[in-house]
Amino acid sequence: MGAAAIRRAPGIGGMRMTTAIERWLERRGVTVRDVAEIVLSLQRPYNDRLTMPDCEESVRAVLAKREVQYTLLTGIALDELADRGLLPEPLQQIMEDDESLYGVDETLALGIVSVYGMIGLTSFGYLDKMKPGVIGRLNGACGGEPDRRGGDEADARSGAAVGRVHVFLDDLVSALAAAASARIAHQNPDARKYGLPCEG
Amino acid sequence: MGAAAIRRAPGIGGMRMTTAIERWLERRGVTVRDVAEIVLSLQRPYNDRLTMPDCEESVRAVLAKREVQYTLLTGIALDELADRGLLPEPLQQIMEDDESLYGVDETLALGIVSVYGMIGLTSFGYLDKMKPGVIGRLNGACGGEPDRRGGDEADARSGAAVGRVHVFLDDLVSALAAAASARIAHQNPDARKYGLPCEG
Amino acid sequence: MGAAAIRRAPGIGGMRMTTAIERWLERRGVTVRDVAEIVLSLQRPYNDRLTMPDCEESVRAVLAKREVQYTLLTGIALDELADRGLLPEPLQQIMEDDESLYGVDETLALGIVSVYGMIGLTSFGYLDKMKPGVIGRLNGACGGEPDRRGGDEADARSGAAVGRVHVFLDDLVSALAAAASARIAHQNPDARKYGLPCEG
Amino acid sequence: MGAAAIRRAPGIGGMRMTTAIERWLERRGVTVRDVAEIVLSLQRPYNDRLTMPDCEESVRAVLAKREVQYTLLTGIALDELADRGLLPEPLQQIMEDDESLYGVDETLALGIVSVYGMIGLTSFGYLDKMKPGVIGRLNGACGGEPDRRGGDEADARSGAAVGRVHVFLDDLVSALAAAASARIAHQNPDARKYGLPCEG
Repeated sequence: MGAAAIRRAPGIGGMRMTTAIERWLERRGVTVRDVAEIVLSLQRPYNDRLTMPDCEESVRAVLAKREVQYTLLTGIALDELADRGLLPEPLQQIMEDDESLYGVDETLALGIVSVYGMIGLTSFGYLDKMKPGVIGRLNGACGGEPDRRGGDEADARSGAAVGRVHVFLDDLVSALAAAASARIAHQNPDARKYGLPCEG
Repeated sequence: MGAAAIRRAPGIGGMRMTTAIERWLERRGVTVRDVAEIVLSLQRPYNDRLTMPDCEESVRAVLAKREVQYTLLTGIALDELADRGLLPEPLQQIMEDDESLYGVDETLALGIVSVYGMIGLTSFGYLDKMKPGVIGRLNGACGGEPDRRGGDEADARSGAAVGRVHVFLDDLVSALAAAASARIAHQNPDARKYGLPCEG
Repeated sequence: MGAAAIRRAPGIGGMRMTTAIERWLERRGVTVRDVAEIVLSLQRPYNDRLTMPDCEESVRAVLAKREVQYTLLTGIALDELADRGLLPEPLQQIMEDDESLYGVDETLALGIVSVYGMIGLTSFGYLDKMKPGVIGRLNGACGGEPDRRGGDEADARSGAAVGRVHVFLDDLVSALAAAASARIAHQNPDARKYGLPCEG
Repeated sequence: MGAAAIRRAPGIGGMRMTTAIERWLERRGVTVRDVAEIVLSLQRPYNDRLTMPDCEESVRAVLAKREVQYTLLTGIALDELADRGLLPEPLQQIMEDDESLYGVDETLALGIVSVYGMIGLTSFGYLDKMKPGVIGRLNGACGGEPDRRGGDEADARSGAAVGRVHVFLDDLVSALAAAASARIAHQNPDARKYGLPCEG
């Protein structure tokens, strides 16, 4: 990720880098830190020196990939259009119902998971089923839980999911966390090399 | 595909069955016959008794699968929203440019191709690159180029493709034709069975 | 699955159908019943009338697909060749170590999961991580650990898994159970149809 | 790819780097240069300053990924075991026949293609169908064409395919070329950025 491509924004107690794709995620209630927490919980059992900054760096490395950005833009756009009732029927109704047989969200997620190889598939499925952390909050927001908010980008920082429909976003966040975990696993110096030249 | 789920519409010289998903495709300038012609051209070299009705039946069998329908609905909705300028930026611009690195259309297509196994991947890629028949017409229509062709792509029988943006539809039609071809290949009685019990 | 393709073998208390692919699985310590139990545990929460025979039928329907059989044959062959020390190095060592970054098993599993659409990806990943029932027994058998468990994984009814290396088989069984579950979900009459013609 | 992981071997007119995975490919009759030629033919129309060294560098970057190496090792091992008649039946016969419905080779290829996003799927399918360059030579060698060679690794340099069975290798080489092409496409400075931060 080139220095020119990022905007430095003052954060609490230091500099924080915010990119366009991070702002898209934040608009929907998801921060890099939320995703990094999930990555840490997945990878800590295998590497007890792993820190939150390591995990945040890995999430940002995945977010820097163009194909990941395009996939997120597309899924988030679909969720937002559903929020605003702009999708053609019957797609609008399918999204509002979070119809369980609608698998396009899983298909899109595959495009993110696979960028660090298919080992991420297992973590993706596990996260998508168990819905830890922000994934569960996104899922809880969908389907009519009390959702009283003012301003359409209010309160992204509090961790509450913004918007009503998160058909795509919960799968995409699971995929993002799975890919960032796979990236860390590939970089683990304990991984044996079997005489093969690897950059992971 | 249950009898209850289809509507019989009088066609020229006979009965023609039209379903909701076929009407979505026709709205974008694609008929079952268009796709069946591509299937016939792919499979005829391996089976000289194959007919257009066989290929149309195979396309309709793929279209009867729910996951295929959901994928088509989603991709077509994105193309139509781009036509109407309703997508959020930068996605709107990416779709209007048919940006070559946008791979979400290929990812979605994977969800259709794979329903008859991965043998369809080869046909999908070939069709998506060569753009025979209706696939080329969709691609030509995109971006407003004049579309003056002689020879076997001339007629645009059913008319030019409807709409300007077909970022998703050309990939989805390639995937549909690839899946319908794979289905025919699996049913070919010449396929050796190797002592395995198969329904194809 | 045609009647001609199956061999009827006398079972305890009745007729049991055994096919070539079922015998391959049984050779490695996995029965249709083992997989059906996992399917039942996945799908029962959504359908309280679901029975073991329903789940066994669904597993056999997945097993009747040629692409599923070919994938199983290939993965099982690799496990068996590793058991016999016949793979070239460094692949032999990678398989013996069940190296965590070796993702070819997940890739192969994708070829099974996807035959009923990508909704199966979530169940696949969940099963592959949690390793319930026979999947855990396969995993425990690998690498020769003693496998003393009480509670619901105790019995190892059909005996311990056969063979030492199950790098592929645990992923393939997870994929098989995920696909059989997706098939049941697609057939659930409670699934709303949204005006679309579906055969599931 | 770390300096420590590579072996420098004197080449004609300069230094040439040879890694373990390159030697596996060469053992089966495929050189980095063979693959790079295919990449050049795919990408030259979009970038007329592209050179063979650029393409060779891109092929080597794909080969440096661990998941790509593991996939190649597995597919090549299966081809070699089939050559030596060591696979269990009916898999041995299926591989010798290069049975057209056996899609495990396409499934494995997906694990390579996807590492630079799904845009590579189109090139993969096109190459796998058209079989340019070394892909066609691999395919021609399979299925009993005259294949008079002495010594089982003779003549790898001449470009003739070594061995009889290349069920996996032709798909894997197509996938390798498709991924190396996708990598070049992502790096093309002409690619518009749409305000997104990308490393490609």
